[in-house]
Amino acid sequence: MIIDCHGHYTTAPKELQAFRNAQIAGLDNPALTPSLDSLKISDDQIRESLEGAQLKFQRQRGTDVTIFSPRASAMAHHIGTERTSQDWTRICNDLIHRVCGLYPKNFVGVCQLPQSPGVPPQHSIHELERCVKELGFIGCNLNPDPSGGHWTAPSLTDKHWYPFYEKMVELDVPAMVHVSSSCNPNFHATGAHYINADTTAFMQFIESDLFKDFPTLRFIIPHGGGAVPYHWGRYRGLAQDMKRPPFSELVLKNVYFDTCVYHLPGIELLLKVVPVDNIIFGSEMVGAVKGIDPETGQYFDDTKRYIDQIPHLSKEDRYKLYEGNARKVYPGLAKHFPQ
Amino acid sequence: MIIDCHGHYTTAPKELQAFRNAQIAGLDNPALTPSLDSLKISDDQIRESLEGAQLKFQRQRGTDVTIFSPRASAMAHHIGTERTSQDWTRICNDLIHRVCGLYPKNFVGVCQLPQSPGVPPQHSIHELERCVKELGFIGCNLNPDPSGGHWTAPSLTDKHWYPFYEKMVELDVPAMVHVSSSCNPNFHATGAHYINADTTAFMQFIESDLFKDFPTLRFIIPHGGGAVPYHWGRYRGLAQDMKRPPFSELVLKNVYFDTCVYHLPGIELLLKVVPVDNIIFGSEMVGAVKGIDPETGQYFDDTKRYIDQIPHLSKEDRYKLYEGNARKVYPGLAKHFPQ
Repeated sequence: MIIDCHGHYTTAPKELQAFRNAQIAGLDNPALTPSLDSLKISDDQIRESLEGAQLKFQRQRGTDVTIFSPRASAMAHHIGTERTSQDWTRICNDLIHRVCGLYPKNFVGVCQLPQSPGVPPQHSIHELERCVKELGFIGCNLNPDPSGGHWTAPSLTDKHWYPFYEKMVELDVPAMVHVSSSCNPNFHATGAHYINADTTAFMQFIESDLFKDFPTLRFIIPHGGGAVPYHWGRYRGLAQDMKRPPFSELVLKNVYFDTCVYHLPGIELLLKVVPVDNIIFGSEMVGAVKGIDPETGQYFDDTKRYIDQIPHLSKEDRYKLYEGNARKVYPGLAKHFPQ
Repeated sequence: MIIDCHGHYTTAPKELQAFRNAQIAGLDNPALTPSLDSLKISDDQIRESLEGAQLKFQRQRGTDVTIFSPRASAMAHHIGTERTSQDWTRICNDLIHRVCGLYPKNFVGVCQLPQSPGVPPQHSIHELERCVKELGFIGCNLNPDPSGGHWTAPSLTDKHWYPFYEKMVELDVPAMVHVSSSCNPNFHATGAHYINADTTAFMQFIESDLFKDFPTLRFIIPHGGGAVPYHWGRYRGLAQDMKRPPFSELVLKNVYFDTCVYHLPGIELLLKVVPVDNIIFGSEMVGAVKGIDPETGQYFDDTKRYIDQIPHLSKEDRYKLYEGNARKVYPGLAKHFPQ
């Protein structure tokens, strides 16, 4: 079984964006604010939005299940108020739930959170519980920068986040550290802000004793861990200079990288430096990079193809990458896909 | 000849930091502000600060010249006013000039700039001209985020920076894109802020037509280009999706990466994906990572050792990495080291 831990519903029917546009228009003119039940999307529309995209690629690439969440760039926690974020989040998560209901063999849900700048993370607990307990979701996407590129929230290792982490631990669900779009013109969303957030989160984890406080808390750092594997020596060296414990103790029981790295040399590096126990297959399909690489004739984001080119990958390691590690990090998978 | 394009005076005599501390104390109590000529550092102190550090490592590692600039993390353009930055910058650059005067075969200068949040970049032109024309410096360090982690300045490709770029072109000197310390608690300076800035700058360049406007403008992106080489496929794919020209045309005549990547697999990746014409040897010695890698028994930042382990590196490519590309990007080198 091949589990892709990183997919967003980037192909949702256009009615979803129309709802969002109306919601944003309502920030200036409340009369335009749509009611939650005004969004009408049929099952057929959902099927159509997936059949020619995620489902087609699953079949073509030979993957089985995608751990699926709302479009990350559209979370845009910086827009509007906490209420804006709550309504938008609920709409988006409910749509993921419908996807998973229509295709229970192909998708399992991970939720967006109703974060908002300056709002305590514990305000996201209710939606996390609803998604996990009522909708069968198995994790969440946690935005370390709800301001959208201004980085005004405390570090992920600050006690600010602890009440939310307590709930994650209680529910036994992991979080993917995933920012959204950037309203800071310095940062291109998928080309800078995403990757910077990944790098930033890892360094925050190295500096702190977060995982002493939460020994079972688990994070997935997407996009291959940002810059971290490429600079693995730098990070080992920085930690050593700071007299931190070895990575095996400091972060490797709690932090995992996905394989969203869109060329073979990058995947080779990732598998060479990061222990295989800390790598989970992911593609972010259909996501940041949609085209075909002229150098290979294949989709940039067909990351399975790169992994399958790695020589001497043992059967055991292959299992870990494609299934075993995902089952370990997302225990909720077992309910949907018993072994 | 082996030229290290990236070294900072991290070992300056303690009087320099004492001056800075007094300068910062003077922000609250102007009576404490030191005069510029109050800083007394003898030639012997300078020699001592280098003999056991940069010069020792040059000899041990077999490198010849370091392109040398003030300590990057101490630039701290966010502290105080424009005047604070002007005074501190002048002091730091003058000290680099003394280093280069004492060891003209070992060091050649690159200047810090008197940037300050909200201050137009053309205010840095005077110091750039002074350093290049009077002190014989061959480049500058340009901070894309003088706010120190709040990223309040316009993108490097914004016309905001154009007057400064015009002067760089006129003087025919490159800039290393180099942030300083971070006053945003999200970002560890050398573990997140530096690497994020590198990644951010490259994506800004991809999005814009800056190098159409300045065909001879040249930037070095340090720390191996941040996350960029590891995500080379992502960046090629993003540019393609955005219908941008191929990299050869878009950035590779103007943007160079150094080799400050502190493990062999990272250097292997860099040399595999980035054209050798765009890579310049650098180590940032003595810099971000000071320790010895227990896995190799060698200093993490001895980047020459990694390059020398790359198999099948042709003599021609080796020359480009260690000398030729530096001479191309920093034409001012020729005055100090005629071929």
